[in-house]
Amino acid sequence: MKKRLNIGMIGYGFMARTHSNAYRKVGNFFDLEYTPVLKTVCGLVEEEARAFAARWGYEKVETDWRKVVEDPAIDLIEICVPNNFHAQIAIAAAKAGKMIVCEKPLALNAAEALAMTEAVEAAGVPNLASFNYRRIPAVTLAKQMIDEGRLGKIFHYRANFLQDWTISADVPQGGMATWRLDAKAAGSGVTGDLLAHCIDLALWQNGPITSVNAMTEIFVKERKSVESGKMEPVVIDDACTFFCRFGNGSMGNFEATRYARGHKALFTFEINGEFGSLAWDLHDLQRLAYFNHNDEGITRGWRSIHVTDGDHPYMGKWWVPGLAIGYEHSFVHQAADFIESLSTGKPVGATFRDGMETQRVCDAVLDSAKSGTWVNL
Amino acid sequence: MKKRLNIGMIGYGFMARTHSNAYRKVGNFFDLEYTPVLKTVCGLVEEEARAFAARWGYEKVETDWRKVVEDPAIDLIEICVPNNFHAQIAIAAAKAGKMIVCEKPLALNAAEALAMTEAVEAAGVPNLASFNYRRIPAVTLAKQMIDEGRLGKIFHYRANFLQDWTISADVPQGGMATWRLDAKAAGSGVTGDLLAHCIDLALWQNGPITSVNAMTEIFVKERKSVESGKMEPVVIDDACTFFCRFGNGSMGNFEATRYARGHKALFTFEINGEFGSLAWDLHDLQRLAYFNHNDEGITRGWRSIHVTDGDHPYMGKWWVPGLAIGYEHSFVHQAADFIESLSTGKPVGATFRDGMETQRVCDAVLDSAKSGTWVNL
Amino acid sequence: MKKRLNIGMIGYGFMARTHSNAYRKVGNFFDLEYTPVLKTVCGLVEEEARAFAARWGYEKVETDWRKVVEDPAIDLIEICVPNNFHAQIAIAAAKAGKMIVCEKPLALNAAEALAMTEAVEAAGVPNLASFNYRRIPAVTLAKQMIDEGRLGKIFHYRANFLQDWTISADVPQGGMATWRLDAKAAGSGVTGDLLAHCIDLALWQNGPITSVNAMTEIFVKERKSVESGKMEPVVIDDACTFFCRFGNGSMGNFEATRYARGHKALFTFEINGEFGSLAWDLHDLQRLAYFNHNDEGITRGWRSIHVTDGDHPYMGKWWVPGLAIGYEHSFVHQAADFIESLSTGKPVGATFRDGMETQRVCDAVLDSAKSGTWVNL
Amino acid sequence: MKKRLNIGMIGYGFMARTHSNAYRKVGNFFDLEYTPVLKTVCGLVEEEARAFAARWGYEKVETDWRKVVEDPAIDLIEICVPNNFHAQIAIAAAKAGKMIVCEKPLALNAAEALAMTEAVEAAGVPNLASFNYRRIPAVTLAKQMIDEGRLGKIFHYRANFLQDWTISADVPQGGMATWRLDAKAAGSGVTGDLLAHCIDLALWQNGPITSVNAMTEIFVKERKSVESGKMEPVVIDDACTFFCRFGNGSMGNFEATRYARGHKALFTFEINGEFGSLAWDLHDLQRLAYFNHNDEGITRGWRSIHVTDGDHPYMGKWWVPGLAIGYEHSFVHQAADFIESLSTGKPVGATFRDGMETQRVCDAVLDSAKSGTWVNL
Repeated sequence: MKKRLNIGMIGYGFMARTHSNAYRKVGNFFDLEYTPVLKTVCGLVEEEARAFAARWGYEKVETDWRKVVEDPAIDLIEICVPNNFHAQIAIAAAKAGKMIVCEKPLALNAAEALAMTEAVEAAGVPNLASFNYRRIPAVTLAKQMIDEGRLGKIFHYRANFLQDWTISADVPQGGMATWRLDAKAAGSGVTGDLLAHCIDLALWQNGPITSVNAMTEIFVKERKSVESGKMEPVVIDDACTFFCRFGNGSMGNFEATRYARGHKALFTFEINGEFGSLAWDLHDLQRLAYFNHNDEGITRGWRSIHVTDGDHPYMGKWWVPGLAIGYEHSFVHQAADFIESLSTGKPVGATFRDGMETQRVCDAVLDSAKSGTWVNL
Repeated sequence: MKKRLNIGMIGYGFMARTHSNAYRKVGNFFDLEYTPVLKTVCGLVEEEARAFAARWGYEKVETDWRKVVEDPAIDLIEICVPNNFHAQIAIAAAKAGKMIVCEKPLALNAAEALAMTEAVEAAGVPNLASFNYRRIPAVTLAKQMIDEGRLGKIFHYRANFLQDWTISADVPQGGMATWRLDAKAAGSGVTGDLLAHCIDLALWQNGPITSVNAMTEIFVKERKSVESGKMEPVVIDDACTFFCRFGNGSMGNFEATRYARGHKALFTFEINGEFGSLAWDLHDLQRLAYFNHNDEGITRGWRSIHVTDGDHPYMGKWWVPGLAIGYEHSFVHQAADFIESLSTGKPVGATFRDGMETQRVCDAVLDSAKSGTWVNL
Repeated sequence: MKKRLNIGMIGYGFMARTHSNAYRKVGNFFDLEYTPVLKTVCGLVEEEARAFAARWGYEKVETDWRKVVEDPAIDLIEICVPNNFHAQIAIAAAKAGKMIVCEKPLALNAAEALAMTEAVEAAGVPNLASFNYRRIPAVTLAKQMIDEGRLGKIFHYRANFLQDWTISADVPQGGMATWRLDAKAAGSGVTGDLLAHCIDLALWQNGPITSVNAMTEIFVKERKSVESGKMEPVVIDDACTFFCRFGNGSMGNFEATRYARGHKALFTFEINGEFGSLAWDLHDLQRLAYFNHNDEGITRGWRSIHVTDGDHPYMGKWWVPGLAIGYEHSFVHQAADFIESLSTGKPVGATFRDGMETQRVCDAVLDSAKSGTWVNL
Repeated sequence: MKKRLNIGMIGYGFMARTHSNAYRKVGNFFDLEYTPVLKTVCGLVEEEARAFAARWGYEKVETDWRKVVEDPAIDLIEICVPNNFHAQIAIAAAKAGKMIVCEKPLALNAAEALAMTEAVEAAGVPNLASFNYRRIPAVTLAKQMIDEGRLGKIFHYRANFLQDWTISADVPQGGMATWRLDAKAAGSGVTGDLLAHCIDLALWQNGPITSVNAMTEIFVKERKSVESGKMEPVVIDDACTFFCRFGNGSMGNFEATRYARGHKALFTFEINGEFGSLAWDLHDLQRLAYFNHNDEGITRGWRSIHVTDGDHPYMGKWWVPGLAIGYEHSFVHQAADFIESLSTGKPVGATFRDGMETQRVCDAVLDSAKSGTWVNL
């Protein structure tokens, strides 16, 4: 008989959907000691929370997150609300002894992230910052290949996350749909929203960043506020690019924007080492590009690995070779690994501490962009 | 309050997984009048059926499919067993007044398929042949564009389905895992297994085929039988290629094999018309290639459409632009459309009749390969 | 001091340009015992021949090819005129003891091709059928890899040549610009013009074809004749597809058309063997796709080889790695190899005999399309 | 009767080959008032110069460049020697009233480049800095599309030039073959060699850069000197990345390295504007990627334009649609445009002044990398 893992979901937006779907599916494909139970969903507007509960099968609805955090029936708190609520919920949940999974970026800034990290570590509760892209099979395979030393000494790490959804000056800021353009809710613009993903993968794959030099830009200087109904200055970063040094001596080059026509969600990384290179792109997430310099000269070329075989990370649980899975599966894998970690007692990343390290880089990037100088970490 | 749709699943193999997953997910993403209920699963080996039921949440287990077909609590019979069982189960289910979803190919041959079609039509029960690839969003978009006349008069239809999993002479034939190599269970080799998918899409997108000319090959002449333990002649087709004429005057070129190194499941089609062309490949299922001759000359080029926008078929139900879905979602879409058709009363394809038409082409292909001549349909 | 190789060019059209360019360039890049000299150009319209001579540096102009063939100053006759002139010129040139390079297809049909082959062999003169694509470096590399046994036993050979320039019914037939649509001048349509290239590569890479089964189509049934100014029936094949058996037991699938929107000159081949596969496309002629099944499982993928390294065929003569050459260089390589063969005495292909073998397959394809049955070779 | 343009080539290395080839070919394909004549080649080692002259048909050989510059028979001086010789030769040639084509980068630094520019402008002689990539047809087409306003307001310009040939610590520095690693001869490392190309295209396509912020790296700290035979510190930049602001408000992101495994000569640019985006890659130089946001939503996608049609820049002079040209043709086009400018009197770029602007950016990049701060231009 499986143990139950009772989930209290804070939020009913996009991320609440990805996480709910993951918990509903994970047991059908992975063999786990715990069965996740969608216990309570919590959101500000009760009828919307109720509709979400009906759709996903949550047993209970709340509008005050504190009640969920304090509910003894709940084992795991899922934080899927705008960034400015992460810290308070997470710290309260840690104090209440709950496990926590928190959407990224972990917090509005590194100070908050540190407080959250200290709270979960003091409480000794399992914790996870939801950097889901680590668990796209092609990305996991890349990590595995790097760890095996297949690339040798690393020279370059390159990543970007390019979108094009805010080019129109008519897109408003604030409110439920566009809180990501509101500095109070989001903390920053593309840095926290997009570069955080790039940075998390970079730290995980290539180790610590020791210094950064950045620039940011705001292309549309004012937008209508959903709250006030008036034109107000835009204060979040529309675009951000930075270069950096890693502890291992390699150079980094990062860029994110929401002004790159034709890119819906072009999230890529490329890593160049002595013996080979790897590259990946979210638009074609099932493929990993690999150049192996040790291949014989005349037949050497970038390989396009279709990461759908049974011996590829996670893929043995799904279909058969050649049949792709998608974006949502990264959350299923994350759920599987997290639940597995409850049995093994070995924490899995990204932990809150990992999330805090990413936040420290984000802060340094924004500081550097402001000062126009290198910032050390 | 939603109506319940009670499902009796016959089979617990690969296809039973894809269908069970679809019914479990569909209500989370689509707004439907019926809630599918995983009522009963039926399979030969009781403990395996039981394990399957536990994993997917089926309420009941049977080992005799007749009991499921006769169970008044069941609304819909799902046929996910080897091809040689399709006809008897489907005909019995039709007589029992059940709706039926049957895996492809519909039957061992056109005669069986006709009997099944007549049975469901006589009984007036909703029926579906599970040609799931129609509902990959890029494929659905292609169909929509063709129907809108964007390609104009069609000259060429080209499709293939290439795999490489039977190249080793050590792969056995028969048994649970390799029944697709057993003529008694499968009816044919790549023709029924792979070309049936190509033909279904072709008939749907490009209309009837009027004549075919085919060749087949068996590369590995004998394999060990799982049943007898002895080497026995291989009688299914390892590879099949054919060309044909369509009713609309266009030429077709089709090929399938399990001996094409490097192709796990390369399933492609390309259609060339007066005003443009479309091409698709299952390996990168989220993309549709489109050439629009009406684009201005110097900037004309094949477009790679990343079919993940909210206004693309089905995609408004999933995530946000740029985030891909995968293979399994084609079954979710099929389930959604089928359930929707129960409300609208408008049948959706592939119906059994459609499945029978595909079977007729398969039979003609195999006949032509045997006779070495053109066969009319 | 280098020996001179005096060239008599019959024709001043497209192919005369590619060959003249090749002879002018070859000595700048390849170290050869002979210096090609553009001695005489011959064409029907004297002023056009004169303009061609001025542009390319031919010393002399003729309007009667017999004078060139008989001129003792000429060493090599280049035949770059419509197909219906090939045989008479080649046979006369052979009798005159000239070396001959003849554009493809070698002749209007296999009978003519045989007569030409017997003539050059009887005369013992160096001869070449200009199947230039053998000498695109990526194609040459493919041949080399096949000959080294890297693919093992071959199962499939697939090739096509797709264009879209005759879709409009307003394209006329006959005359200088569109003689390829005129059966008298061209012999056949896409079979001799396009499939001949596919077949030449196939025979060269994969050995003899033993039987074929073909279909052809004429989409636009009548076109204006440039000669008569009236609408006349189209008798050449607009499209042709065939499958076949090779002597080595593999299956072939070939297609050519001028009605595939979006394909200017999509000339591809793919060959699937036990240990690997190769694929190439003229549109990206600098790349060869290679799948090596012997690569370790989890990192296996199609390699895209950028065939521009110094150790790739011919590439040591050009620039540096990464810098592509183009279509015209295949003719330079052909010229280099042909001139080299004069020194070594070892003939290089495609010889007239090779060209005749291709012609035999073309004839069989056209016969099969007419009869609707398999034709043995 | 055409006028003769007598060329004095200084240098007999790689670039002397590309330029000589261009002058030999240009008249065969372009209709020009002048016929280029390969008059004199000049190089330090007489026998090598003699061999070069023999191969390319130069009439005369010199070992002292001053004699060529002063020779009244010479019209045009071609400077194809290491960077540290550019200024003195160019200034002398300008004083002697010669036209000048100089390889890039124009000089060791901006001060030299300014002196050269002033010299040619004072002398009123036609002058060209050989930034050949402007004349790859796909690149020229991109420029044309940008100038027509097809992209609207520009937000981002991105370029890189990645190679992998100096990863081995065994590559020496200095001497004839590796002077690019010698600071005295080359001035800088990847900045002058590779980024100069990126910057030239960027300034041409996107206008002036107003400020830059850069970092450089030396991965292999010492290499054997060809001159001294001893290990000596490496002082050129192995890798360089910078971001910048353009005068039009867009952000730039540039990177070059010789340590990116798998990239022989990955030279790319991408430009994102309000209405669309363009991208190009030297490895597939015949293709231009174009995203047109004005295309209808559901069929929108990146177009891959195969830039080989008769109405594409320069392509009407070559073969037929679908047949690619290569790297060397950019030099032929440059020669054609330069010679054409002699007739029209309208200078063509990159002029020496353009080359100087690129040099100013290169200097600012190196200054910024040294100081770790933004540098204004």
